[in-house]
Amino acid sequence: MSAKRTTPIKGEAWRAYFETTQLLTAELERRLKADSGMDFGDYNILLVLSESPEQRLRLGGLARAIAFGPNRLTYRLDVLERRGWVRREPCQGDKRGLEAVLTDDGRRVFRKASLPHSRDVYDVFLDHLTDEQAQAMLEVFQPLRDRLTD
Amino acid sequence: MSAKRTTPIKGEAWRAYFETTQLLTAELERRLKADSGMDFGDYNILLVLSESPEQRLRLGGLARAIAFGPNRLTYRLDVLERRGWVRREPCQGDKRGLEAVLTDDGRRVFRKASLPHSRDVYDVFLDHLTDEQAQAMLEVFQPLRDRLTD
Repeated sequence: MSAKRTTPIKGEAWRAYFETTQLLTAELERRLKADSGMDFGDYNILLVLSESPEQRLRLGGLARAIAFGPNRLTYRLDVLERRGWVRREPCQGDKRGLEAVLTDDGRRVFRKASLPHSRDVYDVFLDHLTDEQAQAMLEVFQPLRDRLTD
Repeated sequence: MSAKRTTPIKGEAWRAYFETTQLLTAELERRLKADSGMDFGDYNILLVLSESPEQRLRLGGLARAIAFGPNRLTYRLDVLERRGWVRREPCQGDKRGLEAVLTDDGRRVFRKASLPHSRDVYDVFLDHLTDEQAQAMLEVFQPLRDRLTD
């Protein structure tokens, strides 16, 4: 280990971040399920599709955006397709590929779920931050996201 | 929504944090599996037990520490028990309860897995932070952890 790796503050920061994220995710997911009957994975699939042009995205791009492996994505899309919220279709330009499309029902369900979820995120987390702390988080996680999506 | 809820920096910080955490977790888990053949859930069970007095913890306390529901915990403990890394035993003191105990093999396996994992955490994340950024993260996540474990 190099000298910079022994900074105790970094190890402490990692533990606080990692453990808190597990607790926070569990709490937000518990509320999401109670309000809307969906788990975080499903919510994120609907979120990413709702923000994509024409509400559609190739399966590979969707998997990358939500950091799901192909098996897990297939399984969740099966569930979402049975509920009528998502459809899989041949890609519009490249018939060999598949893309996931948000249905009208899916859009409605997502919009309805996003309101209490957003409120929960503020209640549990964001309302307790100062703008300076939010800025500091942005400066930590944005460059990391850029590195991880390179 | 109250006025403070419209601060755009907070929404941005949330998205950067949440999306990056998904990518980061996926990347670290990919490396953990490649190095040690275990997923993050298993790693965290072994971590929590390795830090508990006498390497043992009641199932309820373990579930809370890693934010697993009871079914998920039972399933993972079945797997870890089959591998010989963890044992379930009646609680010392209260024979009606069960506790999970790290075995000697489990301790060895965890120690071996923790070295490359810790290196990965620094490589991917912590080496890119300043001490000031680590301090800011600690100040964000420690109070949140306290609130969530109240």
